[in-house]
Amino acid sequence: MKIRIKKIFENFKEKPDAIIIKNTSENLIDSNFFYVTGLEKGLFEGCAAILFPDGKLDIIVSRLESETAKRANENIKIFENHEEFNIHLKNCVQGCGAIGLNFNGLSYRDYQDLSTVLSGYSFVDVYDALSKTRMFKDELELSFIKKAVDISDKVMNKIPEIIKDGMFEYELAAEINYLIKKLGADKPAFDTISSFGKNSAEPHYTNGETKLKKGDFVLCDFGACFKRYNSDITRTFVFGCASNKQKKMFETVLNAQKKAFEMMKPGITGKQIHNAVDEFINKSDFKGCFIHSTGHSLGLGVHDGSAGLSPISDVKLEKNMVLTVEPGVYIPGFGGVRIEDDILVTSDGIEILSKTPRHLIEI
Amino acid sequence: MKIRIKKIFENFKEKPDAIIIKNTSENLIDSNFFYVTGLEKGLFEGCAAILFPDGKLDIIVSRLESETAKRANENIKIFENHEEFNIHLKNCVQGCGAIGLNFNGLSYRDYQDLSTVLSGYSFVDVYDALSKTRMFKDELELSFIKKAVDISDKVMNKIPEIIKDGMFEYELAAEINYLIKKLGADKPAFDTISSFGKNSAEPHYTNGETKLKKGDFVLCDFGACFKRYNSDITRTFVFGCASNKQKKMFETVLNAQKKAFEMMKPGITGKQIHNAVDEFINKSDFKGCFIHSTGHSLGLGVHDGSAGLSPISDVKLEKNMVLTVEPGVYIPGFGGVRIEDDILVTSDGIEILSKTPRHLIEI
Repeated sequence: MKIRIKKIFENFKEKPDAIIIKNTSENLIDSNFFYVTGLEKGLFEGCAAILFPDGKLDIIVSRLESETAKRANENIKIFENHEEFNIHLKNCVQGCGAIGLNFNGLSYRDYQDLSTVLSGYSFVDVYDALSKTRMFKDELELSFIKKAVDISDKVMNKIPEIIKDGMFEYELAAEINYLIKKLGADKPAFDTISSFGKNSAEPHYTNGETKLKKGDFVLCDFGACFKRYNSDITRTFVFGCASNKQKKMFETVLNAQKKAFEMMKPGITGKQIHNAVDEFINKSDFKGCFIHSTGHSLGLGVHDGSAGLSPISDVKLEKNMVLTVEPGVYIPGFGGVRIEDDILVTSDGIEILSKTPRHLIEI
Repeated sequence: MKIRIKKIFENFKEKPDAIIIKNTSENLIDSNFFYVTGLEKGLFEGCAAILFPDGKLDIIVSRLESETAKRANENIKIFENHEEFNIHLKNCVQGCGAIGLNFNGLSYRDYQDLSTVLSGYSFVDVYDALSKTRMFKDELELSFIKKAVDISDKVMNKIPEIIKDGMFEYELAAEINYLIKKLGADKPAFDTISSFGKNSAEPHYTNGETKLKKGDFVLCDFGACFKRYNSDITRTFVFGCASNKQKKMFETVLNAQKKAFEMMKPGITGKQIHNAVDEFINKSDFKGCFIHSTGHSLGLGVHDGSAGLSPISDVKLEKNMVLTVEPGVYIPGFGGVRIEDDILVTSDGIEILSKTPRHLIEI
């Protein structure tokens, strides 16, 4: 992980002397902690990683997880309570001037606490440097993402066999999540979406007690999380024979995705791609029906940092970025179609990581 | 939800004029947003709830989730971008003096942004008031928790049938998660723990590629999340015949839990219960083998606010609190036993919500 840490420090004009990545509890765990430690298991509530420009890493860890932390083979300091944590922290950064903190990953309360414990130090925000470093995936990260994509491909390919007349949305989600785990993933990457019929028109709808019936769209959007790295795939099926309108929606989305794939290569901005996709859909019969961004960066986070294919993204595509491409068309009260794949930017274009077929499947 | 909001304001000596609950993205979603809106579905990234002492609630919501938010039947303001969000926010709090923010649920970056947008206002921390209000569950919350407990009971009772010689830990976790979802829960309450043999000695170990063999402990710790409310249950089985040491560990933990149950009633502190349990285990053959707190509050969060049965908890038990009681004994290299149930504090004692048998089951 030394190389990752050094790279983070390269992304500063004025380098801080040290960076503290501090976890709070449960839903305030900073994924950067795992990026710099490489720890694949464990929760690490209340723990901290301290990084130095030469790649050195200290980990302050609670006794409960000290055995797990030792697997990272680094400088472990064990604490039993807040006081011990603070003593370790002070020792680690002694002699430093400016200290980097992730202002986006730290609660305001934690910021106040750190300001008190480390009074006299100056703090700088390191969110941008962390986010910029993480945009480019290294070999190990790519191997985890590819495994996650492989699992979600296998699950998606099984869906036509799983789907049955009258099944509930939540039952399909249960089957999907079961396969994700059974195939060796840690867990689903996010709340699995399996929406039937008109529910598919709500992009953030997950799953509920709607029963499947003939003619329904079946929109499945899920991912696998493998060693903390995520995949994210969407396919929209039709249960029974697709109507002309359904076919038209599907083709429009598929062609919009193709359009994006063709444009994607190093140098082009996220905004250029999104705008082209948006324009393509707006010129079709489905003007105004594409209501979200075209894609997002993928990695330790499902929305991994700031890179994306959105109307405000000035980020230029570069080799080793991993992004989703997910145009959609949504008609309230009728239904929606979304097709989503994960791509890796290569030196002269892209590699589409997901291998699941993209044509319309009528079940 | 009006009553909940009014109760929050009752928990201040000096009431703020309004409270802003602000979500950031993905893992920085404040569960208090759902407490005050009652919204059972949806993500609500970047959205905010603004509460007033008379129980009034404004919700600032992105267009993507405006349909879902309308179900909360409140004052919805829709935004398309940051600028619109800020305009709505300023309008909502116009005329207010002190504004409450949850310092523990807000990133430092969001705090900085709010300070800029609402310059001239003073901010006070409302974490304690929110946490104190949420300690006491209302009828609706209890009905959701009881349903979540019912689901995890049903799943736990099926485990002896599911377990097979040579199965992997992650396979058992897949079966558990499948049943949780199939029985109507939204999802598992947290990463399901299914640890075999010596892995059960690590309380934070989840599941991996260890195969089950005769004589192993099988520790299962999981919960169901139903309409955002959680259950949390642990049972430790033995695969095959339990050895005398395993039996002794089990009996010690079971009796430690009984000890806690007997003591629990309104007025006693979390610390008193934890210390009694700790002392009980330290007087047995397993001195020093209990390495975590005895329990935690349960609700919208799996660790729901600050109440708990820990060595530092001065919180007095009161009617309508919901807590877990989970003593354990852990022997590194050998294995661990934990028994965990969810209880409701009543006017004169407790009601044990989980109905799963607690005796040792050899499979």
